[in-house]
Amino acid sequence: MLRQVHLTGPISRAALANRLGLNRSTILALTTQLTAAGLVREEAAGATGRAGRPSLVVRPESGRWYVLAFDVAVDRLVAARVGLGGTVLERREAPRRRSKHADLHDVAGVLAGFGRALVDAAPQGARCVGVGASYCGLVRAADGMVRLAPNMGWTDLDFAPALSRRLGLGLPVAVGNEAHLGALAEHVRGAGVGHRNLVYLHGDVGVGGGIIVGGRLLDGDDGYGAELGHMIVNPQDGRPCNCGSRGCLEAEVGEAALLEESGRTGGPVGRDGVRAVVEAAENGDAAARKSLDRVGEWLGIGVVNLINLFNPGVVVFGGTLGGIYQGTAPRIHARVAASVLPVSRERVQLRTAVLGDNATLVGAAELAFTRVLADPLDTLARTTP
Amino acid sequence: MLRQVHLTGPISRAALANRLGLNRSTILALTTQLTAAGLVREEAAGATGRAGRPSLVVRPESGRWYVLAFDVAVDRLVAARVGLGGTVLERREAPRRRSKHADLHDVAGVLAGFGRALVDAAPQGARCVGVGASYCGLVRAADGMVRLAPNMGWTDLDFAPALSRRLGLGLPVAVGNEAHLGALAEHVRGAGVGHRNLVYLHGDVGVGGGIIVGGRLLDGDDGYGAELGHMIVNPQDGRPCNCGSRGCLEAEVGEAALLEESGRTGGPVGRDGVRAVVEAAENGDAAARKSLDRVGEWLGIGVVNLINLFNPGVVVFGGTLGGIYQGTAPRIHARVAASVLPVSRERVQLRTAVLGDNATLVGAAELAFTRVLADPLDTLARTTP
Repeated sequence: MLRQVHLTGPISRAALANRLGLNRSTILALTTQLTAAGLVREEAAGATGRAGRPSLVVRPESGRWYVLAFDVAVDRLVAARVGLGGTVLERREAPRRRSKHADLHDVAGVLAGFGRALVDAAPQGARCVGVGASYCGLVRAADGMVRLAPNMGWTDLDFAPALSRRLGLGLPVAVGNEAHLGALAEHVRGAGVGHRNLVYLHGDVGVGGGIIVGGRLLDGDDGYGAELGHMIVNPQDGRPCNCGSRGCLEAEVGEAALLEESGRTGGPVGRDGVRAVVEAAENGDAAARKSLDRVGEWLGIGVVNLINLFNPGVVVFGGTLGGIYQGTAPRIHARVAASVLPVSRERVQLRTAVLGDNATLVGAAELAFTRVLADPLDTLARTTP
Repeated sequence: MLRQVHLTGPISRAALANRLGLNRSTILALTTQLTAAGLVREEAAGATGRAGRPSLVVRPESGRWYVLAFDVAVDRLVAARVGLGGTVLERREAPRRRSKHADLHDVAGVLAGFGRALVDAAPQGARCVGVGASYCGLVRAADGMVRLAPNMGWTDLDFAPALSRRLGLGLPVAVGNEAHLGALAEHVRGAGVGHRNLVYLHGDVGVGGGIIVGGRLLDGDDGYGAELGHMIVNPQDGRPCNCGSRGCLEAEVGEAALLEESGRTGGPVGRDGVRAVVEAAENGDAAARKSLDRVGEWLGIGVVNLINLFNPGVVVFGGTLGGIYQGTAPRIHARVAASVLPVSRERVQLRTAVLGDNATLVGAAELAFTRVLADPLDTLARTTP
């Protein structure tokens, strides 16, 4: 029930009973229990303009219980205090220098500083019940080890213990891959709410993915699933990919491809660089249009393959791919119409992410809340200061 | 517990307690209940050569409870009586003429005849507790409607009710896609036992797939997931595919591609035709070798994409793809080594299916057992003659 209140926000007991398939007396008992623990409160809903007794809603105690959420992106570090119910209460951000070298100590140091400041700034009586982090690298499911491929070699970073130690809160740090967490966030609070099967494509320097299958995040044997950026879409004369292969979706539609093919190397990179190409294409710049169309062709093939494999209700384009999708949607739709099996094409929707740059951070917060939502009273008893 | 006995076969109560994480008194109570219902029996295990009290094992009552399993393949119709525990007790088969026309009445008629004969031949007291069917077409999850694309149009076949009516057993028919059921069978009784994530590629005239994600069959929103045969692997000069697109995996590695590229049109088709090409290649036939190598290249790209997407423990090649994989394994392994992310390559195994031509039938039987295994006592009470 706490999960439902956390996800939907203020909701009446009758609606809770309905959604959870429980009877009203059970809901009443649970509400009493969660209220006594200080996790929710019942209060009058906003003025409805109708006469009579004001209706009550159960509301998460967002101000009292919060998690710390961190986002290690290629070019920035973000930290936030996120309240029960998913409200971002306070946020800090710093740029990160693009580096081919592992910078574990720098990253953990900056984030821990942010984290401690966020905890210090929290109101009296508010309590941190979890810590989650999104990392722009592969994350081993078993232990949260981050696995990066800088300069084509492989480096393993023991990021979670390093951050946990520096935070000094006595809480473990749950780590997830940024695109997996972006998918989770869009699934529970974004463009994919209500869909049991969702494909999320995330563009940054590279292209990652997160896939929800039957309501759950696809992780594979070791947590390395959904690496749709390394699906080969152009085997014959594909561009070289950072992974060492050729013709991967990431190589064909990532930032480097878009900038190089539009003759814009040396200018702005990252989100700004991608945005500049999309805008130039819209304003009639032929090189930008050609480059964007080219990206749209390859992206369309990737999307076709993903729809035929997952029969999803929705495909969501996030990060830089949101803008790229909007700039080349007709090509992608044409490819889908030509090559997706009609039965899987009938109902699928293509959408841009709605959580924007916050998607991975929101996903990290959801990861942090997982433990407390699974067994709220027990978790709180064990984390009482 | 019945599911465990059904899947593992004879097993001691101590081992059951261990596998199910239940204490011994609970296992004893369940054994007593299931024995009273006649679903299992306890008896001495085979002679162990050790002195002392003979150890007891719990054994499924395979002879008393069975399901009917049907397989509608492109070129044959199969029916079997399959006992609790998965033993194929009796089997009937007929060839099916390859046809571009829907032959629902012919198919249902032949299968119902087989089914009634199998029921009649069953020993006194044996009871049919379910009916499952595998169909070589897309199957809508909501209602089991079979959706075929003969001659590029689409035909919906209400196969399950037609077969159920003709069987006259008062039992519904559960229908699944052949490759999905092949995957299920290899997962529970074949090359993928013990793996939570498995990719199964099934070759027949076309190429289908079944994918197990986190221990469950991937079906997608409507049951049309895992259509890996319609993943585009050759977008630039791909062969036309039966689906209307080009360069799909099915178009590049299916039976037609292999036979045409080796100059063997007009000869044997189906499993025999594929086997002939693989054998000719092994015996030094240059055209056959070239065609097989070509298929291996495209199959390798498909396999790379699937491993990067699903991070599976095992990839299983079934149907005609079993022989093709064996005939061109070095090429596929080389492609995997070159293009799969090292983290996902570390542990994945590539194997041929072990259930052979029976995989889809075994999968259909598992589908038929689903209901009785989910709630054995209740189901039996409701199906008592």
